[in-house]
Amino acid sequence: MQLLKDKILAEGRYLGKGILKVDSFMNHQIDPLLMKAIGEEFASRFKDTGATRILTAETSGIAPALAFAMAMNLPVVFARKHQPVTMAKNPFKESAESHTHGNVVDLIVSPEYLQPNDRVIIIDDFLASARTIRALVKLVNASGATLVGIGAVIEKAFEGGRAAIGDIGVKVESLAAIANFDNEKINFG
Amino acid sequence: MQLLKDKILAEGRYLGKGILKVDSFMNHQIDPLLMKAIGEEFASRFKDTGATRILTAETSGIAPALAFAMAMNLPVVFARKHQPVTMAKNPFKESAESHTHGNVVDLIVSPEYLQPNDRVIIIDDFLASARTIRALVKLVNASGATLVGIGAVIEKAFEGGRAAIGDIGVKVESLAAIANFDNEKINFG
Repeated sequence: MQLLKDKILAEGRYLGKGILKVDSFMNHQIDPLLMKAIGEEFASRFKDTGATRILTAETSGIAPALAFAMAMNLPVVFARKHQPVTMAKNPFKESAESHTHGNVVDLIVSPEYLQPNDRVIIIDDFLASARTIRALVKLVNASGATLVGIGAVIEKAFEGGRAAIGDIGVKVESLAAIANFDNEKINFG
Repeated sequence: MQLLKDKILAEGRYLGKGILKVDSFMNHQIDPLLMKAIGEEFASRFKDTGATRILTAETSGIAPALAFAMAMNLPVVFARKHQPVTMAKNPFKESAESHTHGNVVDLIVSPEYLQPNDRVIIIDDFLASARTIRALVKLVNASGATLVGIGAVIEKAFEGGRAAIGDIGVKVESLAAIANFDNEKINFG
């Protein structure tokens, strides 16, 4: 997706250790027109999946997943890190180690919003080591729903996330795949 | 906003102790068409403020703030609960006690995305005790930016948030104000 790649080149900053700062348009501040275009791009790639629900994780997955949900007119569920007082008992729960800070975070979804007859697309901001995405896949499996696609805004192809997801028979799409960082230069795959 | 009130009556559930569950369309699952309409309603109420940026808080403020940002074509910043590794040192930081679980959470914003020449509208999911919103106001003040409006999707008018915000000379708008709960019945103001 050229618009996204241009934005990453213009505003993204490589901080070393594989960390790309995209706080100016995705992870702290959000560029609404870019996010709308990201949602439409996901919609064009997943339009034939027969999806009924979108699943993402707190926090930075919410914006791209909502933009996609608006483009598809599908409900989007964001897995919570902490079980809120409003959530039904015995939710689906998985854990994932955070890629950037190393802490283990929970991902919790109520069975009310992930049901056996659902066809689910998982959306997240990054596909790096795929720890979060794999935990989301487990939540889908636990619910009995059918996974029909996985989408990430930015893929760090050098971190092996695609291989870590494994061959699960669904389309895995990223909108900008970074092959490597060459000092401060960002090289797309 | 009638569409929102209808949704609250159809799907909201009063759990006692002032807690309203709206997980089916805002706080766990998001209804994308309703959220788009919420964004447009905020835009119609704040169109004459000359706003340059929108500020909200992780997590549940992100969806309505992004929908509003899309309608206004303005960047939206979400205050982080934890300082990410990508954030510049010495950010603006305030604390607020969570209304529903009682824990104190931090709200952290990088000075990169909240600047003295900004005109800021604060958006959140609920206006209840206004603890979160008051912390966001302090962040705006710390940055030197000008606050030009405050918007909440749902107001629990009986919890005194509007009075707690005080007379700060900006428009405070909520899209559905709940006067009280009568057993399980939800009464709008």
